[in-house]
Amino acid sequence: MTFSDVTLDVSGERFQVTYWISGSDAAEARKNARDLCLEQTVELSDSMVPDGDLRDIIVGQIENSQEIDSDLYEFVISYAIEITGFELANLISVIFGNTSMKRGVRVLRAEFPESLLKHFPGPRFGTAGIRQRLGVPHRPLLGTALKPLGYSAERLAESAYQYALGGIDIIKDDHGLCNQKFAPFRERTRQSAAAVNRANEETGGQSIYVPNISGPVDEVVERALFAKEVGAGGVELFSGIVGYDFLRVLAEDDRLDLPIFHHPALLGTYFLNPREGLSSQFLLGQLVRLAGADATIFTGHGGRFPATREDSQRLALSASQPMGPMKPILPMPGGGMTIDSVGDMLDLYGNDVVLLVSGGLYSLGPDLVANCQLFREKVDQYSSAWE
Amino acid sequence: MTFSDVTLDVSGERFQVTYWISGSDAAEARKNARDLCLEQTVELSDSMVPDGDLRDIIVGQIENSQEIDSDLYEFVISYAIEITGFELANLISVIFGNTSMKRGVRVLRAEFPESLLKHFPGPRFGTAGIRQRLGVPHRPLLGTALKPLGYSAERLAESAYQYALGGIDIIKDDHGLCNQKFAPFRERTRQSAAAVNRANEETGGQSIYVPNISGPVDEVVERALFAKEVGAGGVELFSGIVGYDFLRVLAEDDRLDLPIFHHPALLGTYFLNPREGLSSQFLLGQLVRLAGADATIFTGHGGRFPATREDSQRLALSASQPMGPMKPILPMPGGGMTIDSVGDMLDLYGNDVVLLVSGGLYSLGPDLVANCQLFREKVDQYSSAWE
Repeated sequence: MTFSDVTLDVSGERFQVTYWISGSDAAEARKNARDLCLEQTVELSDSMVPDGDLRDIIVGQIENSQEIDSDLYEFVISYAIEITGFELANLISVIFGNTSMKRGVRVLRAEFPESLLKHFPGPRFGTAGIRQRLGVPHRPLLGTALKPLGYSAERLAESAYQYALGGIDIIKDDHGLCNQKFAPFRERTRQSAAAVNRANEETGGQSIYVPNISGPVDEVVERALFAKEVGAGGVELFSGIVGYDFLRVLAEDDRLDLPIFHHPALLGTYFLNPREGLSSQFLLGQLVRLAGADATIFTGHGGRFPATREDSQRLALSASQPMGPMKPILPMPGGGMTIDSVGDMLDLYGNDVVLLVSGGLYSLGPDLVANCQLFREKVDQYSSAWE
Repeated sequence: MTFSDVTLDVSGERFQVTYWISGSDAAEARKNARDLCLEQTVELSDSMVPDGDLRDIIVGQIENSQEIDSDLYEFVISYAIEITGFELANLISVIFGNTSMKRGVRVLRAEFPESLLKHFPGPRFGTAGIRQRLGVPHRPLLGTALKPLGYSAERLAESAYQYALGGIDIIKDDHGLCNQKFAPFRERTRQSAAAVNRANEETGGQSIYVPNISGPVDEVVERALFAKEVGAGGVELFSGIVGYDFLRVLAEDDRLDLPIFHHPALLGTYFLNPREGLSSQFLLGQLVRLAGADATIFTGHGGRFPATREDSQRLALSASQPMGPMKPILPMPGGGMTIDSVGDMLDLYGNDVVLLVSGGLYSLGPDLVANCQLFREKVDQYSSAWE
């Protein structure tokens, strides 16, 4: 019993994914690459695939390869754009769905033609849109996280007020704040948004509060709209838990019309091992941008998480480099940053960045507002060249 | 500037997570474990946490530890049930959200008290419910995957018909079939469900067609209900892409009332490295069961994917062992299985299993119906003891 061929009506357009594939030598790596081409498409062994369109169009095609190390090879593999169905879940699955369960394969990056990208709305705001909302055209942006879990909505709102008074542009929830009874989502969002807006009235600033709307999938959109209603200036989502495609749904929603800050909760495992999984450049740069995030939070080089300078830079670059009609988005490095890292971070990322400092603000002195002002001064000092 | 303590009204109930944590010696591993307790909760350094309820209730607590190897230690860490907000996304984030971005930590398994489990509906059908729907009270169940991507809905439906005639109980979509123009979701589901039901009328059997409903998050529920409407007998979902909590939403939906088959697309990276990520036992056993899956598809030992016998067995056990009110669910090992593996698989899993053989059915001979019957005979031969 064999499969028969089909005649397919397709555009001929293909997108390309660059993988690192391990193998004891070039021949084995190539065999592994060919297996991947089959696994990610027809899920049949090579001998079962009939000649014709199934083999030539549906199956992934090796376009290019080069040796990286004696046991590691880079392959560029192309897929017909139509096999994604132009749906995000399907696109992700084509790139790495089943192969995630095999050893020795890593997705480095992808190249999507406009014929594919046009099916996705992408970021609504991007870097320029967020800058406009915040009234900050050039300088690096300041971000922080409301914490800790266990505090009441009142206490968190009081901190949010002080952050805004001190000049922090983006005040987001610590990702651990969801909908616990200590500070339930609605109460926390209402109070913190009001506190930040009250500070804005006093300072003339345009700081925003960004609540974490990650929660039950049947409440995500509702929480986002509630946030908007009570005066929040953006929403934070961990799409790797809640569902990547929620970025698209939120970006497309005209009722919401708020920037989306993507948090990488649970996603670290994908990029920790340099020879397996998904690179942070692909996952937190390209993919969340394609899906619709306006800013991408990540654990940057120099904090308490492992991240090389090169990885952080590549991620930030992929957030901003040309990608068809997709707007550039803001890299938002965090995870143990202090104001002493400001200079290094600006060296690394340039001015289109949100510097996320949270715990580090508390160690500077007894007055939170003054500490935020110190952070701002530090940024101004290093970034005066851009003003 | 320091944090002040809070007085918290909590039940005192805690859930426990068993981690493997690396460290050059016991002291370093313990320090890493303590860092995890802070990272997953207050996201503050130890010195910033005031004495009192924040430190004693909110921060994770090390309950137990033992050496596994000179550089690897097992820690049992407990968390207050209230910090999950009793929402799945939050629960997942508490267990591994930020720590996923650190090296040398693996979640092995969790123990949830009934006080936490009662907030989740869990599987609607489970093993017993699926067996009842299929009219198969005891013997191992037979499963296969419709393929390949590129075939039209008509051709796929013709295969589905033959599978059902041949006695396959569960005929699911290959996970690559989503909503491509070659065989759009609605057309494929309508035709394949009708084909399987037509075969059932001829044979008196109760085979089911299980379409892959993974797609845009704002269409998942709609696709599930469509599947139900046109006579499908279950739905397949990759929750690791679409969103884990969709398992709950689908399980809770009285309009749907169909078993959910969980597919592990994209999730392999979590369990490949034995010292990092999430064990398959936790992710594809405990977590998807808690969330509401009735059957858990995985790449089993003996196929074309790497999986040790022990890992496969642990996963299958965690699908069935006592877990508060949660029904046992069906393990569904696949990924390159052939009918020659039937004996080994039944040895490994017992009779409460779905044996997933797909490509392997084609190599047996020119007649697909006859090949399915061979598969069934093989199962009957090995499993006669259970009848």
